[in-house]
Amino acid sequence: MCAVDKERLDKLFDFFREIDKEKQVQRQTLLADASRRENDAEHAWHAAVMALVLSDYSNTEIDVLKTVSMLLVHDLVEIYAGDTPAYDEEAKKTQKLRETAAADKLFGMLPENDNHRLRTLWDEFEQADTPESLFAHAMDNIQPAMLNDAAGGLNWREWGTRLTQLLNRNSNTADGSQVLWDYTYENIIKPNIVSGNITDDTSGDEQ
Amino acid sequence: MCAVDKERLDKLFDFFREIDKEKQVQRQTLLADASRRENDAEHAWHAAVMALVLSDYSNTEIDVLKTVSMLLVHDLVEIYAGDTPAYDEEAKKTQKLRETAAADKLFGMLPENDNHRLRTLWDEFEQADTPESLFAHAMDNIQPAMLNDAAGGLNWREWGTRLTQLLNRNSNTADGSQVLWDYTYENIIKPNIVSGNITDDTSGDEQ
Repeated sequence: MCAVDKERLDKLFDFFREIDKEKQVQRQTLLADASRRENDAEHAWHAAVMALVLSDYSNTEIDVLKTVSMLLVHDLVEIYAGDTPAYDEEAKKTQKLRETAAADKLFGMLPENDNHRLRTLWDEFEQADTPESLFAHAMDNIQPAMLNDAAGGLNWREWGTRLTQLLNRNSNTADGSQVLWDYTYENIIKPNIVSGNITDDTSGDEQ
Repeated sequence: MCAVDKERLDKLFDFFREIDKEKQVQRQTLLADASRRENDAEHAWHAAVMALVLSDYSNTEIDVLKTVSMLLVHDLVEIYAGDTPAYDEEAKKTQKLRETAAADKLFGMLPENDNHRLRTLWDEFEQADTPESLFAHAMDNIQPAMLNDAAGGLNWREWGTRLTQLLNRNSNTADGSQVLWDYTYENIIKPNIVSGNITDDTSGDEQ
């Protein structure tokens, strides 16, 4: 093996060992059977499989490899920056700063070309203005909604989730896929409004 | 939304909820910090990221999307068939039969076209005779070796692993990537032979 390959592979394998820590970043979302919370690695895997199967529902034709790749790496920065709960307004104020520093540190472990490649993917996901990043965001939003519903809406009820919060969190889901947003709203969110797990505060007469 | 989409999406989302169970299929492999064993979803995510970054080390040029897709779904059958430990010779006798029945059941939840697509990917992985499936197997073999080594070789020591077993398990790793097999042997396996975590039984004079 040439010295160039050895040097590159040493760095890549250091990175692969480091990202093992993503399996220990706990999220708020419960598994479908509500037995425990899921972690970032599990979430990334689940959302990537969904992207693979659902890609033809993207509003615009997408490069599926780019989309799946984005989903596989989109939460890596949380190894250092931690998971920022969707409705934690205080933590969200510093999120961008914390996650950019984490990206510098984590992707900075990689050889220059690999660093550039993964960092570009992450930046595009964060920017959320291309068909691929918008579809990836749709998966990133729909996957936890699906699990929260499957787990009986316990999370939403416990957090006292209001519909405007959920719609805000999903403000770009339809930009990735109108069909999947419509499906999610009708079949996953609406039943939880009806059952009271989510409080409908959009009509102005909520309690 | 048209009725055809609704019917397809109902089945797809049932499938997405069902495969959530992959997060509860425990593997033998310890996390890098040896704090607990990893599960199939975490393993699939980790191996998929590695494929993404390492694809240019494939012996033959590969379709990276196909390879990553294969890795994302390759262990789904274990939701019903369970994880078969690499060195459990009894369990391995019935593995093929158990996993084929599991594939029929799990992929059979999907609409016909989606079933065909994912089943074809899984069959190709199992067949292991295309550049993509061979590279996917290389990732599937190297990822746990990397973690076993990172965790201090505890697993290998505990199981009394012999080098011939490990070489047998990795019999097709070099068919996916000679460079990565050479790197893995030199930097991940060999140090554990030296330290005694793996017993070298290839010279005929092992204890």
